[in-house]
Amino acid sequence: MAGFAAANGPWFEKVEGDRLIRGFRPVARHGNALGIVHGGMLAAFIDSAMGSTLSHVLRRRAVTVRLTLDYLMPGRIGEWLQAEAELLGHDEQMAQVRGRLYGPRHDVLAGVGTFALLSRLRRPGGRR
Amino acid sequence: MAGFAAANGPWFEKVEGDRLIRGFRPVARHGNALGIVHGGMLAAFIDSAMGSTLSHVLRRRAVTVRLTLDYLMPGRIGEWLQAEAELLGHDEQMAQVRGRLYGPRHDVLAGVGTFALLSRLRRPGGRR
Repeated sequence: MAGFAAANGPWFEKVEGDRLIRGFRPVARHGNALGIVHGGMLAAFIDSAMGSTLSHVLRRRAVTVRLTLDYLMPGRIGEWLQAEAELLGHDEQMAQVRGRLYGPRHDVLAGVGTFALLSRLRRPGGRR
Repeated sequence: MAGFAAANGPWFEKVEGDRLIRGFRPVARHGNALGIVHGGMLAAFIDSAMGSTLSHVLRRRAVTVRLTLDYLMPGRIGEWLQAEAELLGHDEQMAQVRGRLYGPRHDVLAGVGTFALLSRLRRPGGRR
């Protein structure tokens, strides 16, 4: 990871078959004036988990076209947060993804995203 | 600004009457693997501009409840980006806001947000 993800990391990733799980432990620099995790940070994290799930499942780079987010409960500083995404459907150009971001006790953020699919990724170690 | 906004700043702010304008110049740490501004960073910035507009216009703290974002064109690293928000309507508990994030040549992101209104802010220098 580089750029924004590195600057706001560390972010952790676990892959179980088609399932990709992203996690991070928010600290003060992820917070807002109310002392909870910044809503924008949560948006960034779920968006990134959705895009990475597309890279993992479809082996395609993707850019966000539309994102709808429901903020359910606050994300707490210091509590491990995790995000997962599910591919709802896709064609050659576009994909629909549902995302979920949750803490140890409850769901924090629910999202649906539309992504434009870009270039194909090489399989790790493969020659295409 | 502290926390996430400070860590991902500097963010600049200008007030013209009821109009609040937020700006920043993206650098590499705001970028993604494609070399453009991270979609999550853009989401965070417009969300924050919407919330700050509510603080400015209604003198109320606010938390995001729902956010819908349309990614129109990429945000470029190095190009000044600005966000503005317009209060569409509100009651005592909730407010609807429309946001717009744009670069020097085109609009980058359009959003609509629902915010829950929290405690009243003191007027700068005032005694309430």
